[in-house]
Amino acid sequence: MTGQPRIGDVFGEMLRDAYAVATGVGPRPLAGGRLPRPVIEIIERDDGLINGAPAAHYLDGPADWQPYDHRAVDRVRGATLDVGVGAGRIALLLQERGVPVTGLDTSAGALTVCRRRGVRDLVHGTVDAHVADGRRYDTFLLLGNNVGLLEGRERGPALLAALAALARPGAQVIAHGTDPYGTRDPVHTGYHERNRRRGRFGGQLRLRLRYRELGTEWFDYLVCSPDELAELVRGTGWRLTDVDDRDAPYYLATLRLAG
Amino acid sequence: MTGQPRIGDVFGEMLRDAYAVATGVGPRPLAGGRLPRPVIEIIERDDGLINGAPAAHYLDGPADWQPYDHRAVDRVRGATLDVGVGAGRIALLLQERGVPVTGLDTSAGALTVCRRRGVRDLVHGTVDAHVADGRRYDTFLLLGNNVGLLEGRERGPALLAALAALARPGAQVIAHGTDPYGTRDPVHTGYHERNRRRGRFGGQLRLRLRYRELGTEWFDYLVCSPDELAELVRGTGWRLTDVDDRDAPYYLATLRLAG
Repeated sequence: MTGQPRIGDVFGEMLRDAYAVATGVGPRPLAGGRLPRPVIEIIERDDGLINGAPAAHYLDGPADWQPYDHRAVDRVRGATLDVGVGAGRIALLLQERGVPVTGLDTSAGALTVCRRRGVRDLVHGTVDAHVADGRRYDTFLLLGNNVGLLEGRERGPALLAALAALARPGAQVIAHGTDPYGTRDPVHTGYHERNRRRGRFGGQLRLRLRYRELGTEWFDYLVCSPDELAELVRGTGWRLTDVDDRDAPYYLATLRLAG
Repeated sequence: MTGQPRIGDVFGEMLRDAYAVATGVGPRPLAGGRLPRPVIEIIERDDGLINGAPAAHYLDGPADWQPYDHRAVDRVRGATLDVGVGAGRIALLLQERGVPVTGLDTSAGALTVCRRRGVRDLVHGTVDAHVADGRRYDTFLLLGNNVGLLEGRERGPALLAALAALARPGAQVIAHGTDPYGTRDPVHTGYHERNRRRGRFGGQLRLRLRYRELGTEWFDYLVCSPDELAELVRGTGWRLTDVDDRDAPYYLATLRLAG
């Protein structure tokens, strides 16, 4: 045996279990077939770093959110695409407020959880593929640290171009990121340095997610400073018009469609 | 980069962080350098299965223990060796009760945490190496699922022989195990079947622990039924005299020195 996971819908299986634990409905993960086992998200970095974190926060109601999430939803206006809707926590609040919101995710399991929780308008797939569906939006949300979806210097402009193709005039992107460069932990500073030597952003993480017997392929996920984000946005159809870093190292970046 | 961890004192680093989180003393793991990050124990199995579980339970006081732990400590008598003392939760209660207890662990970091928490008598190393120290015991504790330390058909009798060499006349072993065969989850039943085809116990797990950038080597850890335990004990200096399975699938096995 190799110790390698089977490729599958890691995020979806994890959210399904987290939802079962939260609601008591459906089969729940147990230790020894008896004691409830909390659902843990496991993130592996390609240098061997691994971190686990309880997955329950994906289901948190607004009372348990961080302040930046509240400020993010207060910036929403018009038809909104929640990119990486996850378990739907943001979409559910927007629905309650009467905002026309569409939840998009590449994880089929995540959309199943969203549907059970009452999110009405859901799209399975990538932002790029969604362009052909003909729907257009005024606000794009990349919350839950999803500045990460910009990945790096190749994918970033391509994702922003796809969002521009989905945009109505005057559209905005509200994106949540984390500035990774405040740390002095050599496990991180060494990783950043090796990345830069290879022409990557320091915080351009190479990750995979794992849950029980499943793993994702390795993928890039960008943890960058507001300055690096500005560099990525330059030359695209978007302008970086605001950075709210009141909860530094976390920040909310607002992009607006240029022209 | 290979995605492989650096070999190190995984368990010790994890317990040190869990202790820092529990007490607020010393550097604690943070997400984004700001939000407290719960300490998660990550266990990888050689078929690619991975599980995370909060590590805080290693520090639990008696009020939060499972019932079998209470029944285990009530069986203690005489000079006691706590094999795999961990963060010392069992040893601390025994000390309070006036039992002469020695905590043994191969993890230097675990012993550091024990010392800070007030465990007085600690030995760093293996049971086998401890024989030469000349100390002898009336009770050996293998709690926290540490039937697992018997590993399999090779190591099991060798560990039991080392315990017999450390034993006073009439000594006992109190060991906590889990019967793994109640599950119908194919991820587990398939693993058990492959193990048996290779001449191993079904629940003879091949594991490694991971914490942040550290990993252990792969090692065997035995999750077996009471019948399999009886098979392992046969022909050693010990007799399996009692199995308390009131909290099945968990059980407490008592071994007594024969003759």
